[in-house]
Amino acid sequence: MPLTDQELKTLDDQGYLFFPNKFTAPEAALLKHEAETVYAMDRKEVWRESSGAARTAFAAHTYNEGFRRLGAHPRLIEPVEQVLGGPVYMHQYKVNAKAAFDGDVWQWHQDYGTWKRDDGMPEPRAMNIAVFLDDVTAANGPLLFIPGSHKRGVIEAGHDLETTSYPLWTLDRKTVSELAEQGGCVAPTGLAGGMLLFSSLLVHASPGNISPFGRIIVYLSLCHVDNHIRAFNRDEWIAHRDFTPIEALSDDCLDELVAENRRAAE
Amino acid sequence: MPLTDQELKTLDDQGYLFFPNKFTAPEAALLKHEAETVYAMDRKEVWRESSGAARTAFAAHTYNEGFRRLGAHPRLIEPVEQVLGGPVYMHQYKVNAKAAFDGDVWQWHQDYGTWKRDDGMPEPRAMNIAVFLDDVTAANGPLLFIPGSHKRGVIEAGHDLETTSYPLWTLDRKTVSELAEQGGCVAPTGLAGGMLLFSSLLVHASPGNISPFGRIIVYLSLCHVDNHIRAFNRDEWIAHRDFTPIEALSDDCLDELVAENRRAAE
Repeated sequence: MPLTDQELKTLDDQGYLFFPNKFTAPEAALLKHEAETVYAMDRKEVWRESSGAARTAFAAHTYNEGFRRLGAHPRLIEPVEQVLGGPVYMHQYKVNAKAAFDGDVWQWHQDYGTWKRDDGMPEPRAMNIAVFLDDVTAANGPLLFIPGSHKRGVIEAGHDLETTSYPLWTLDRKTVSELAEQGGCVAPTGLAGGMLLFSSLLVHASPGNISPFGRIIVYLSLCHVDNHIRAFNRDEWIAHRDFTPIEALSDDCLDELVAENRRAAE
Repeated sequence: MPLTDQELKTLDDQGYLFFPNKFTAPEAALLKHEAETVYAMDRKEVWRESSGAARTAFAAHTYNEGFRRLGAHPRLIEPVEQVLGGPVYMHQYKVNAKAAFDGDVWQWHQDYGTWKRDDGMPEPRAMNIAVFLDDVTAANGPLLFIPGSHKRGVIEAGHDLETTSYPLWTLDRKTVSELAEQGGCVAPTGLAGGMLLFSSLLVHASPGNISPFGRIIVYLSLCHVDNHIRAFNRDEWIAHRDFTPIEALSDDCLDELVAENRRAAE
């Protein structure tokens, strides 16, 4: 189902769209299980917090069948193709955990800022998708957005190598406050299976998690194939170099796996 | 308006009740202004975070007219008298800020645990009130509750003098996780003027605030007069020793101040 004119207008105004229950509970549960499998792996792509808890599994679509299918799912590929006006490739793929009690902060940043500076991506013709694998609540470190902040283009940022576990180009407080005076600050929350589509220029962050419940969100960054990165400074499993257009799978591609697992368990 | 049977049952089951818009926007704005006045004072009752930002103003009802009236407001005194079955006095009064960007964590704890251990309060015949002076959202460090946890009585705790700016008897992670497996973890959010009534045994916490918006909540702890504290280990402006029953003022006691200020500004 293509995005409606109203949805496209909201995306243009606010910089994001939220689709509660985009994936069913069994689909989300399948991917949650796969995330735990991936986090248990001893691989260079799996990064941990200082506590040892998994924080990010990069490029999970290259070594896990469930995440491979999610990365080509029509429910996310088709709207992004529509918004960007053509075929897309996967620039980055992260399964991000925010561990119970220990989950750490991500400071305020724009993703495209990093892609431009580090990866030489020519234009912000790229969109982010977030798929909730757990219920995301006010209590467990939801994603925070500053609506409308994507309209400001690339904002000056400093390279933060200290306050987060992952190097990030972060915005200063004065800038964040000014943007929020205009646009406010929202935390889209909802059940596992929800999906966010947001601009790669949208200013966002996420707080620590002191709650007793962890939460996992999959972030997929999709880029128009003509806009592929030009600089290969980062590892290829962080900033991908396979610019082949993604062909969307069928809408039941995850359901098939759910059914296969159910049969295998019988 | 007395609490209904349904409200009393919810309070007994969950340990808290939330009343959105209990105070009007002008009443909340008045108190917000008074909070800024109080935070600007150089007094022993005003505690700060390591950044210098105000964190708590204790006993504000003893040196500020707006907070004096809030502390005797019928919208909070009468329901607490109803729940506790008799006259109440003010055990503790805190105007708590969670500063933008810097607002710090309060770890998981029960208030009555501290009052019993430190102040010799005989029984948990005391209730907390929280009045929101700012909009409390998923983004700016809302209060987190574990519903039903008040049923467990006083839970073993360790005295945390390190991870928070204020000494606190905090619960260990295993206990918090077990309680949350049963009761979940909720973050009541709402506009300025909202009011929470919650058991002094309810396990609660609040996360840091990385958002560009601060938020102020007034916490009032009301105790049945027969149940007054027996031990005077803490300063009298932290754990009060005036056990005189509070006589509720009229319902328009804050509105009067709003009107006075408006006239003065004309």
